[in-house]
Amino acid sequence: MASQYPPSLRILLPALILVFEIAFILIFYFFVSYDHPRDLAIYPAFQDVNVMVFFGFGFLLAFLRRYGFSSTGFGLLLAALGAQWAVIVDGFLFHFSDGKVKITLQSLLTAIMSIPTVLISAGAILGKANPVQLILMALIEVTVFATNRWIAVGILQVANHLSLMYVHLFGAYFGLTIAWWLHHPSLNQKVEKETSKPVSHLFAMLGTLFLWMFWPSFNSILIDNSRVKSFAIYNTYFAIASSTIAAFAVSVATSKNGKLSMAQIQNATLAGGVAIGFSASSIQHPWTAMTLGLLAGTISVLASVFFQTCLNPFLGIHDTCGVHSTFGLPSLLGGVAHIILIIAEQWRSSHQSDWGYMALLALGALSLSIVLSFVAGLVTGFLLISKLWKSPPATKYFDDQAYWEFPHLAVGY
Amino acid sequence: MASQYPPSLRILLPALILVFEIAFILIFYFFVSYDHPRDLAIYPAFQDVNVMVFFGFGFLLAFLRRYGFSSTGFGLLLAALGAQWAVIVDGFLFHFSDGKVKITLQSLLTAIMSIPTVLISAGAILGKANPVQLILMALIEVTVFATNRWIAVGILQVANHLSLMYVHLFGAYFGLTIAWWLHHPSLNQKVEKETSKPVSHLFAMLGTLFLWMFWPSFNSILIDNSRVKSFAIYNTYFAIASSTIAAFAVSVATSKNGKLSMAQIQNATLAGGVAIGFSASSIQHPWTAMTLGLLAGTISVLASVFFQTCLNPFLGIHDTCGVHSTFGLPSLLGGVAHIILIIAEQWRSSHQSDWGYMALLALGALSLSIVLSFVAGLVTGFLLISKLWKSPPATKYFDDQAYWEFPHLAVGY
Amino acid sequence: MASQYPPSLRILLPALILVFEIAFILIFYFFVSYDHPRDLAIYPAFQDVNVMVFFGFGFLLAFLRRYGFSSTGFGLLLAALGAQWAVIVDGFLFHFSDGKVKITLQSLLTAIMSIPTVLISAGAILGKANPVQLILMALIEVTVFATNRWIAVGILQVANHLSLMYVHLFGAYFGLTIAWWLHHPSLNQKVEKETSKPVSHLFAMLGTLFLWMFWPSFNSILIDNSRVKSFAIYNTYFAIASSTIAAFAVSVATSKNGKLSMAQIQNATLAGGVAIGFSASSIQHPWTAMTLGLLAGTISVLASVFFQTCLNPFLGIHDTCGVHSTFGLPSLLGGVAHIILIIAEQWRSSHQSDWGYMALLALGALSLSIVLSFVAGLVTGFLLISKLWKSPPATKYFDDQAYWEFPHLAVGY
Repeated sequence: MASQYPPSLRILLPALILVFEIAFILIFYFFVSYDHPRDLAIYPAFQDVNVMVFFGFGFLLAFLRRYGFSSTGFGLLLAALGAQWAVIVDGFLFHFSDGKVKITLQSLLTAIMSIPTVLISAGAILGKANPVQLILMALIEVTVFATNRWIAVGILQVANHLSLMYVHLFGAYFGLTIAWWLHHPSLNQKVEKETSKPVSHLFAMLGTLFLWMFWPSFNSILIDNSRVKSFAIYNTYFAIASSTIAAFAVSVATSKNGKLSMAQIQNATLAGGVAIGFSASSIQHPWTAMTLGLLAGTISVLASVFFQTCLNPFLGIHDTCGVHSTFGLPSLLGGVAHIILIIAEQWRSSHQSDWGYMALLALGALSLSIVLSFVAGLVTGFLLISKLWKSPPATKYFDDQAYWEFPHLAVGY
Repeated sequence: MASQYPPSLRILLPALILVFEIAFILIFYFFVSYDHPRDLAIYPAFQDVNVMVFFGFGFLLAFLRRYGFSSTGFGLLLAALGAQWAVIVDGFLFHFSDGKVKITLQSLLTAIMSIPTVLISAGAILGKANPVQLILMALIEVTVFATNRWIAVGILQVANHLSLMYVHLFGAYFGLTIAWWLHHPSLNQKVEKETSKPVSHLFAMLGTLFLWMFWPSFNSILIDNSRVKSFAIYNTYFAIASSTIAAFAVSVATSKNGKLSMAQIQNATLAGGVAIGFSASSIQHPWTAMTLGLLAGTISVLASVFFQTCLNPFLGIHDTCGVHSTFGLPSLLGGVAHIILIIAEQWRSSHQSDWGYMALLALGALSLSIVLSFVAGLVTGFLLISKLWKSPPATKYFDDQAYWEFPHLAVGY
Repeated sequence: MASQYPPSLRILLPALILVFEIAFILIFYFFVSYDHPRDLAIYPAFQDVNVMVFFGFGFLLAFLRRYGFSSTGFGLLLAALGAQWAVIVDGFLFHFSDGKVKITLQSLLTAIMSIPTVLISAGAILGKANPVQLILMALIEVTVFATNRWIAVGILQVANHLSLMYVHLFGAYFGLTIAWWLHHPSLNQKVEKETSKPVSHLFAMLGTLFLWMFWPSFNSILIDNSRVKSFAIYNTYFAIASSTIAAFAVSVATSKNGKLSMAQIQNATLAGGVAIGFSASSIQHPWTAMTLGLLAGTISVLASVFFQTCLNPFLGIHDTCGVHSTFGLPSLLGGVAHIILIIAEQWRSSHQSDWGYMALLALGALSLSIVLSFVAGLVTGFLLISKLWKSPPATKYFDDQAYWEFPHLAVGY
């Protein structure tokens, strides 16, 4: 009979993260230096993004009844380690000159804005992977996503701020592919530990609301032109507000007894912010943003019903947090809408010079992200199932007690 | 014997909010367009106000032991729907030119700043109305409050930023009048579901603190002159700090056994911010703001004791969240103090030309808000008690399970 | 047999805080006026600091299972009262001219930035002192800390923004000295009420994360030069990120069964932000900040193990919240690192004129804070153990029910 206890990470986890941290310090010593600042005007919105990345995503994942410590704690660990690695990778690809990576508030910001990929992927495998696996995933994912951005910006002429809007898409499909590798037969039955309790849903609501409120900052912060920036703020606001309406409406309508599902509300209210990402800076009319948000919220709820009951069991994918319906599909919808809007916009304006070319480039960037996330996810997932990483036994899935000390086991829990 | 189950909202709720949302999109399509931005300098404070409206008020109402999902979820729904409607109504009344409503960050902001009326009114009838009734209330209230502002600004020469300081007064009395209509004999006995538990009070404390901290942003954001703006920040800060002291002092002093009441603390600490609203931009000395805050906090605690035990049962009003003592009376105090300060200020200065006229205008604006909130509340309350809206039976008051799915009924709740 | 009930504060607490508040209003009336604002550009970062002081520290202390109301409620009371007193004391020492204390956003900010001393000290005696004792402690501590800053700035040539970085050091050792006075034999055995429960740890995690995210604002807000300010932001960011890594690594490594301790994570993740305080504005390379953060996080976890099990029982100090390992030691490390960096910097640059003198001044300022915090703590602790203040009996330590009304005693708690 197998042990009831998960393997101890007492050596492996500290060794791994300390080696990485010391390697980071050495790389910083030789290659990274501070640049004279261009401007600190974005600092307040930079803090909004920080709140989203370090607080919002972690608490969004805190909905499981026995996994709040891991959701919020590992979220912080992944973000703190991932952000340092992203500064390095991003730096070498985008900010390298005279043998040095130059750090500015903008470069620190883009590094932090890459971290949602990691936290979204972590949402797909939440409760099924240990922190060692999560960290390895984070470092690989940050690297591949930076490469993705580098190809998109350098070859496919995607604007720098737009290249970061692929985080949701990339994170979702990368994570889902890993979830496919990590699948375990016992996951077909939903166990008690995989459910929520009211208080954990309220913590998740906290995370949801801070993501919701600061999403306009995320979609607009990297835009310099103040007119375009203000449009990105307005569009995100209207899209996320109307996806909230759709979330409530469709959640009630698809429930047998006409009741709302808190999990669907938490996920689908954010779908509008995800979907508008690609076109927040180019949409000129609020009604377009509202329509896109309404669609995104509707699709998100419908997908969460369909995926969780039909598609995922069929494909053998267990998506703990529903990242496919929260981030994957809405982002895909947003990518397609972006291409349609490029075509529509060029059609309307007189100079029809290059609309086909621009739409093709946008399609190429979208396809690139999808393909790269799948391929990288396949390789990463294969690496993560190695016995080296001491993954937890299925009986310890979704359980904080596998990784955290409790003074009195299970008291008050 | 009546059914134990509340009527299902499976058709009514989605139909209602989707019809509204689609109507909004059509109105936006024909009448609303983005304006070139004047300035994005207020964006950080705009986000503070967002946190107050979308997070603070919702969590302030999360104090009931079994009503956290509804408090925070419906709060988000009302704010997201109400803000879109407020953009339209405000737009037609204040920002309409060349056949188009022009959207700027300022106009979006004033729309959002009108939403506290709705959330305060919702606090008075919290747990007793279903989301359909809340939404109807929200749309009517936003309309009437915008009209109130339009009369105040256009006829009574109230400054635009001051016209938004009536939100607390308007929301409180509008909500109390509706609470009078919704009164049910069973509410005279406080049931277990109407109480709090420690964890729900901590969530409410979260909401309280974010409202508390960002109140200076709310009272100052619409002021352009940087000297006046800074005075509004300081005055709000000192007023809300001293109302906090009063809240603690009076709460202990009025308790039989010398203990603090968390509900009183949460409400009365905010009274200073409410009361200083009207005069935050005109008070020249910190001691005036502190005195006003001290008075507001004292009155708020005393009123909460007196109203809940004597006046409300006598009048047949059940005020779930105590909005009368938190927002109603402190705002009334602030309005009266504003008039007195106008008179005192003009008295002191040599040119005594028009102090009487200005004081009369301020009195007129205050009276207008009170009268309009009562009349509109009377009409709205009458509409809301219609059987069309499938209001919940009294046995399902204060109970999330009337509207939200729970995997295991009542487990861990 | 002694009474089970703690002494009622019905008269003492209101009398005390109302007398103070009215005294403040009188002092403000005669001596304090608003100044024309220099600049409101720091307002967004000012709000970050507000969130840290009024929300972050209070919720950081909310980890005890039965003490959440007191942690967050008294935190707000101490901050609101302390900030007003700090405006007065700071004003007379630093902003007094023409017979008036001039209030600007900067002076209000420095007053608020002094409050962490109080909240850190409160952490050391959390659960063992009543609000009357906490308030007396707060007012004395604010006074002594302002004097400390005045000597440091006026005599030891410490820059104004650096003088506020001593808050952590001062607060920790002042509080620990008082904890020594308040020691009670029963504290040697850890009672059930002194433990946490998962939900209270999640509230503490909320506080931790908001402190974590906004720490760069705290360390940089008072710096005017935008280049130096940006360096302070970057350095704080890298230091706090690498102390987070150290916290996770060392917490797992020092646990017998390889599990993480949530209390250690909450405390040691912040150690990097504390330690970098003194040198955030002078460090020129990210690797230096990262190394300091890594050291600080490591020391913080090791110290928490060593102190709680060996040193504190030996010395007769009961440090409820572990402020010694969270704030005391990391700050001491930061102070020593600051001196070493001054010497190293001057060594490397050609003009070796006055490095010895500057290092001596920094050493002097550090020693001054330590000595003053110990001496003031000794005197204050002696005052606080007087029977006048009706301190709670040891059976009511760590118990909200000593100070707060509960509708149904212990229900759901």
